[in-house]
Formats: sequence, structure tokens, C-alpha cells
Amino acid sequence: MSTPHQYRPYIEACVEAMNACNLSYVSNLKQYDLEKLCDCIRVNRDCAEVCAFTVQALSQGNSLAAEIAGLCAKACEACIAECSKHEQTYCQDCVEACRRCAEMCRELEGSMALV
Amino acid sequence: MSTPHQYRPYIEACVEAMNACNLSYVSNLKQYDLEKLCDCIRVNRDCAEVCAFTVQALSQGNSLAAEIAGLCAKACEACIAECSKHEQTYCQDCVEACRRCAEMCRELEGSMALV
Amino acid sequence: MSTPHQYRPYIEACVEAMNACNLSYVSNLKQYDLEKLCDCIRVNRDCAEVCAFTVQALSQGNSLAAEIAGLCAKACEACIAECSKHEQTYCQDCVEACRRCAEMCRELEGSMALV
Amino acid sequence: MSTPHQYRPYIEACVEAMNACNLSYVSNLKQYDLEKLCDCIRVNRDCAEVCAFTVQALSQGNSLAAEIAGLCAKACEACIAECSKHEQTYCQDCVEACRRCAEMCRELEGSMALV
Repeated sequence: MSTPHQYRPYIEACVEAMNACNLSYVSNLKQYDLEKLCDCIRVNRDCAEVCAFTVQALSQGNSLAAEIAGLCAKACEACIAECSKHEQTYCQDCVEACRRCAEMCRELEGSMALV
Repeated sequence: MSTPHQYRPYIEACVEAMNACNLSYVSNLKQYDLEKLCDCIRVNRDCAEVCAFTVQALSQGNSLAAEIAGLCAKACEACIAECSKHEQTYCQDCVEACRRCAEMCRELEGSMALV
Repeated sequence: MSTPHQYRPYIEACVEAMNACNLSYVSNLKQYDLEKLCDCIRVNRDCAEVCAFTVQALSQGNSLAAEIAGLCAKACEACIAECSKHEQTYCQDCVEACRRCAEMCRELEGSMALV
Repeated sequence: MSTPHQYRPYIEACVEAMNACNLSYVSNLKQYDLEKLCDCIRVNRDCAEVCAFTVQALSQGNSLAAEIAGLCAKACEACIAECSKHEQTYCQDCVEACRRCAEMCRELEGSMALV
């Protein structure tokens, strides 16, 4: 069984994506043109939740780690697609953190599928 | 977007499975022949975590609900496979709750794939 | 140690409050006068998260159950204060579910303090 | 409202404690004298759950951050008390990570009480 030590770089990438999504979420809620940002708020929220769960699941060495990593990659990819439409700095930062997280999660998913 | 109202029967099935897994987990830790139950303890724990996340995600109307339901079905199926090996009543109860939850989650996953 | 069986009515009250908060959250995000609802969106979100954690923690028989119930009561009380300001039906439903949950959690907290 | 940026050092301390608790949990389940470690397994689990929730709550800027930090400090203090009884390296590492996390959480709780 895998341990938090082996998953450390993946956990860190998920924490960064979670933080970036939450910062984008919180920042969006302070904008004056909130109507345009509703989809972004929802997608940020969904992605932050999935990242937070992935952090917890990898830290615990959940036996479905590969599937959970695949789910997290999907959530990040949806977040990248939405945040890419907005020019705010925090949206661009979110894209970057989610891109890194999605890559790491796809790598983890792939490496475990080989076992 | 779906709401907690639409997901209510699925949320309830996941709560029941989560409770059954946690009861099995807690009960296993009190047994004297703990060595034989290590795998069961781990699988109970993993399944309870995934069910708890699914409860939260469905209640929030997460846009990855279909994928999350599929993950939850997998966790329940692994739990059924392990708990079926043990004759304790709480393990049998866990099998039953997880079977119901897995069925519901597969139904939800399938119905959303059609959309 | 306590089990999911003993906590069942408390878990159910927390699930109801979580669902009501999430429904209010989702419904608020669809309103046209979103600016007035920002505080409500945030408080709904915070309360739903705390309720979801409480569900999980009680189901697992977490040894800090009394403190966690106290935290959940506080989150519900904050949600009641905010949702009471809005006349939407879903806000009123949220007030009702949170009131019930806060009462249950305060009862649980009190009963465990006596032990 | 506070953001993930302001909470970053606290989030990191909670991630470290969560990882250490989960490693201790996983390692304990592999020991041959499992009976002596049941309390430790339970306390590790409880603390890991509370740390994981605190990570998520601080990242989201939950308005009950002070209370949640206080809860996390309590969970870490209980974990320190239990893990201190065991000489395994991973238990000692857990004590250290939980001590750091408890200090950080008490600091956060105190600083917010002053506001």
C-alpha cells in the first residue's frame, strides 16, 4: 500500500490547485459584474472540493487512488477551460495551478494503471 | 444544474453505506483477532471516505456528479468483496448497505451519461 | 466509544441542514440581484461545509464529537442570522433546517459534556 | 475576509500533521502487536480527519476559521498525548508534526480572537 511519503508531490500539487481555486472563488464573489462570473464561481467551487478530497485520499493511501487522481484531473481540466475565459490575474493563476495538478494527477493515474 | 432535492435518494443511500462502513470499521477495531481484519478495516475506511465525499458532492450539485457516483460504486463494490468474507453481523449489514448504494450510484451514473 | 447508531438522529439533522444550505447556495447563484446575496452565498457555503464534516465525524465516532457538534451549532446559528434577512422560500427553509440542526447539536454537545 | 494566501503557513502545518497522522495510522495497521495500538490508530484517524477539514476550511476562508483552528489544536494535542507513549519512529514524527500544527493553530485562534 502506498503512503503519504510516496504521494507527497501529488498532494502538494493538489493543495496548490485547491488554494488557487478557492482564491479565485473568493475573489470572484467580490467583483461587481458578478453575473458574468457565476459559471466560474461554480467551477472553482467544484474543483476546490475535488482537490481537497484528493489531498485527503492520497494522504490516507486510499486504494482507489488512481481513480481519484483521474477524477481530480477532470475537475482541473474543467476549471482550466472556464478560467481561461477570464482575464483576471487570479483566474490566470488558477489556470496555471490546475494545469500542473492535472498533469501530476494524470501521471499518477497512468503509473498506477501499469501496476 | 442538479440540486440536493433531485439527488435526495442517492444521498440517503450514500449516508447509509457510510454509516455501515464506519460501524464495521469501529467494530473491527474492537475484535481480539485484529490481524485477520486489517484488510477489512482499510477497505471500510476507504469506502466510508468515498461515501462521505459523495454525500457532500451530490448535495452541492457538483458538475462531476456522474463520475463521483461511479467512484462511489467502485468503492462499495470493493467493500462488498471484502466484507463478504467475514461472518460478523456488522459485516453482513455493511454488504447490504453497500450493495444498495452501489446500485443507486450505478443508476445515477448511467442516467447522467445519457444526458 | 460512540457509534453511528447512537448518533443517527444527529447525523440526519446535519444532512438536512447541509442539503438546505446547499440548495440555498445554488438557488442564490441563479438570482439576478446577486450583489445583495453575496453574504448569504458565503454563509451558506461555510455552513454546508461544517455540516458535511460533522456528518462524517459523527459517523466515524470522532472522539471530539462534542466540540464538533458545538462548531456545527455555531455555523448553523450564523446561517440562521443571515438567511432570516431574505424572504426567498429556500432561505426560509434553510432557517428551519439549521434551527433544528443547531438544537440537536447543542443537545449533543451538552449531553457529552456531562460524561 | 481572509484568503488562502494569508492562511498559507497554517495550511502547510495542517497538511504536514495530516500526513504524519496518516503515515502513523497506516504503519500501525501493519504492526504485529496490533492490540496495543488500537487507541493510537483511532486517535491518528480522528486527528487526520480534523486536520484535513482544517486545510479545506482555511483554504476557503471559512468565517469560523478561529474556532476550526481551535478544534484542530485540540485534535493534535490528543494525538501528541497518545503517540508519545509509543517509541516507533513514525509515532515520534507524528508528535513533532502535531506539536508544530497545534502551536500554529493556537496562534491563529488567538490572533483572530483579538480582531
